[in-house]
Amino acid sequence: MAYDDVFQRAVEQLHAERRYRVFADLERRVGDFPRATWHAPEGPRDVVVWCSNDYLGMGQHPKVLAALTETATRVGAGAGGTRNIAGTNHPLVLLEQELADLHGKEAGLVFTSGYVSNEASISTIARLLPNCLILSDALNHASMIAGMRGSGCARKVFRHNDLDDLERLLQEAGRERPKIIAFESVYSMDGDVAPIAGICDLAERYNAMTYLDEVHAVGMYGPRGGGIAEREGVMHRVDIIEGTLAKGFGVIGGYVTASRPVIDAIRSYAPGFIFTTAMPPAIAAAARASVEHLKNSQVERDRHQRQSMQTKIALAARGLPVMPSETHIVPVLVGCPEKAKAATDMLLSEHGIYIQPINYPTVPRGTERLRISPSPAHDDALIRDLARALDAVWSKLDLPRRYEAIAAE
Amino acid sequence: MAYDDVFQRAVEQLHAERRYRVFADLERRVGDFPRATWHAPEGPRDVVVWCSNDYLGMGQHPKVLAALTETATRVGAGAGGTRNIAGTNHPLVLLEQELADLHGKEAGLVFTSGYVSNEASISTIARLLPNCLILSDALNHASMIAGMRGSGCARKVFRHNDLDDLERLLQEAGRERPKIIAFESVYSMDGDVAPIAGICDLAERYNAMTYLDEVHAVGMYGPRGGGIAEREGVMHRVDIIEGTLAKGFGVIGGYVTASRPVIDAIRSYAPGFIFTTAMPPAIAAAARASVEHLKNSQVERDRHQRQSMQTKIALAARGLPVMPSETHIVPVLVGCPEKAKAATDMLLSEHGIYIQPINYPTVPRGTERLRISPSPAHDDALIRDLARALDAVWSKLDLPRRYEAIAAE
Ligand SMILES: Cc1ncc(COP(=O)(O)O)c(C=O)c1O
Ligand SMILES: Cc1ncc(COP(=O)(O)O)c(C=O)c1O
Repeated sequence: MAYDDVFQRAVEQLHAERRYRVFADLERRVGDFPRATWHAPEGPRDVVVWCSNDYLGMGQHPKVLAALTETATRVGAGAGGTRNIAGTNHPLVLLEQELADLHGKEAGLVFTSGYVSNEASISTIARLLPNCLILSDALNHASMIAGMRGSGCARKVFRHNDLDDLERLLQEAGRERPKIIAFESVYSMDGDVAPIAGICDLAERYNAMTYLDEVHAVGMYGPRGGGIAEREGVMHRVDIIEGTLAKGFGVIGGYVTASRPVIDAIRSYAPGFIFTTAMPPAIAAAARASVEHLKNSQVERDRHQRQSMQTKIALAARGLPVMPSETHIVPVLVGCPEKAKAATDMLLSEHGIYIQPINYPTVPRGTERLRISPSPAHDDALIRDLARALDAVWSKLDLPRRYEAIAAE
Repeated sequence: MAYDDVFQRAVEQLHAERRYRVFADLERRVGDFPRATWHAPEGPRDVVVWCSNDYLGMGQHPKVLAALTETATRVGAGAGGTRNIAGTNHPLVLLEQELADLHGKEAGLVFTSGYVSNEASISTIARLLPNCLILSDALNHASMIAGMRGSGCARKVFRHNDLDDLERLLQEAGRERPKIIAFESVYSMDGDVAPIAGICDLAERYNAMTYLDEVHAVGMYGPRGGGIAEREGVMHRVDIIEGTLAKGFGVIGGYVTASRPVIDAIRSYAPGFIFTTAMPPAIAAAARASVEHLKNSQVERDRHQRQSMQTKIALAARGLPVMPSETHIVPVLVGCPEKAKAATDMLLSEHGIYIQPINYPTVPRGTERLRISPSPAHDDALIRDLARALDAVWSKLDLPRRYEAIAAE
């Protein structure tokens, strides 16, 4: 067995399917967001980034940067240990309190990423519940699926956002069997929103726990940035709320908030939490500054919604196939990996616009798309430039114009 | 089913077994390492930390802090996306090149933690090899085990550091079957070292891949800090070398280095790498400054070894049961979770010395211990204080003095 050949062939397979990924080497510039330097093979170039998940630009907020640099200068770069062995640091303890407060829960627990928070928490709570059944939305994120797999528990998938299908599965399982309903609030590739209240009704009726991923909503929805559940007044009805510090909050890290026994059990039993170095104090302080700021400031959220809406309107006005998103996410359908790649290559080379094409397995085959994420810093002039550039590329490549027509194929 | 009760009982179980963990809330101080402020329930107190994994104190090195704060100020706090979608940043690309060079490999890949690097890499390479068998050292870290589980592949455990047992399993499997030998260089709870060259000999004879975790060695061993494999001149014989940026390098994050096809396959197929926000540029720059410094500076490594040796000598001279470690790690056996807890409580309250007791499941039951990690900043006076304090605690609690006697029980 020539090992390298096996891996070489696995990679060639991706080339053959036109979904080999080349990462763009970007260098952002504080004060200049959403502009960045793209370190292209031929040398550095100026681009406008239209697909960042630093949704509100908090990654360059002065309060966030001040907390980061002040804390690093005072207490150092790393945490220096796992949470149990010398790694629990004061800014991290304060951050966990801040997050529990954000979601109105008894306790919070921070992980190195949102991915790890989902994987470690779901696998641990499901494993601790005897004969647990996990009911999972069909479009749940890879990190939640990793947690379900890791639990070794039975799992059934309900149709995306479909309460009837979920009820059918709950009925089948019966009231007595321990059940976890795992779902997201904002689905990040389509921008649609879960019927959280309806899911909570069913959870109560059939005595299931609810686990909600608010990764694409925290900081951005709700009067204090608590997410869609806060906006809809149902935060207290959800058992476990998970979020990231890397998107709306602009830093890095993930977390769960819940009742004290749930958090203490995850804290005490999850290998992905126990056996890894704690979050650096400077990162914790930066994230806390961001959470705290967005608890008290509505301007970023308002402008975010406005610029997203302006973008949708501007693209639709030019007959571009904007998918029907209910949130800040603006997906534009292409429906083919080669064409999606060609379109984004042209946007970059001819218009200085950086948007990454979204291919399988992130989205189903045949629904390849551009996923555009306007921020408060994408002003009306940038939106006009984007619409014009997309229009030109769509014409040049003869891409389909009507969402309904493509979706119906 | 009352869900909270289940989790409550799971936590009570840990109390009953005397292994419920309470995290000490610490605040380190740049320039004052290894001293820290302990935020005790009764108020802040000054302590000396003797169990940090910031082994060389690089977490407060001026070059590391300068890189961190300069980069954050210039490019922002977070990466703003996954590696594929707007998150690949220039300092991170440079860090990956630096790490590939450190280990003499074609390519490197950075993850959010060492835990994730092991889990994601092992599960991915094993899954890509048809009918793969993983041969795993009995004392491998939880993160490697998570990766093996995640792969769904067959796994056999060989006795710790035992070449004969490993050869027996290799023979059983035969030359043709794809095999990965997964092991560590420095085992962090005992401080012993793997026979890397012997394992590489067997791997060649039976055509197996080798996967080596150098988490507790990188930065600290080898003329450029490449780890034990570098020190022993066998780096080029190991297929995949994994490390962390959170211990010897003092920051956070993990990585693997290997041939280009292996790295490209992990990059392209590992969910734990693909579906998570990239490392922040400021963290990447800080880690790179640390790696670069330790490539060129030997003083930290020399003083680290000296102070570790001094510590072992000082403790042994007082008849404390120092376990026979070959490295910088100084484990002192207690053999019982209650007594280990009582000893560390007394060290903290009466001597201002912070050492976390190590209990099951981190070490086998009956081998509970204090795990002491001297750094270059623990000077001879601090070592004398430590020896005196341990001696007093051992007498007061009437703890066993002879390692051999306890180990033989
Ligand atoms: C729904 C969802 N959950 C979790 C994550 C993981 O969060 P993080 O990037 O903090 O690891 C992501 C994306 O990265 C996501 O889209
Ligand atoms: C052997 C070993 N591998 C991997 C890890 C994980 O590294 P990290 O702390 O960077 O997640 C650790 C400890 O944390 C470890 O001891």
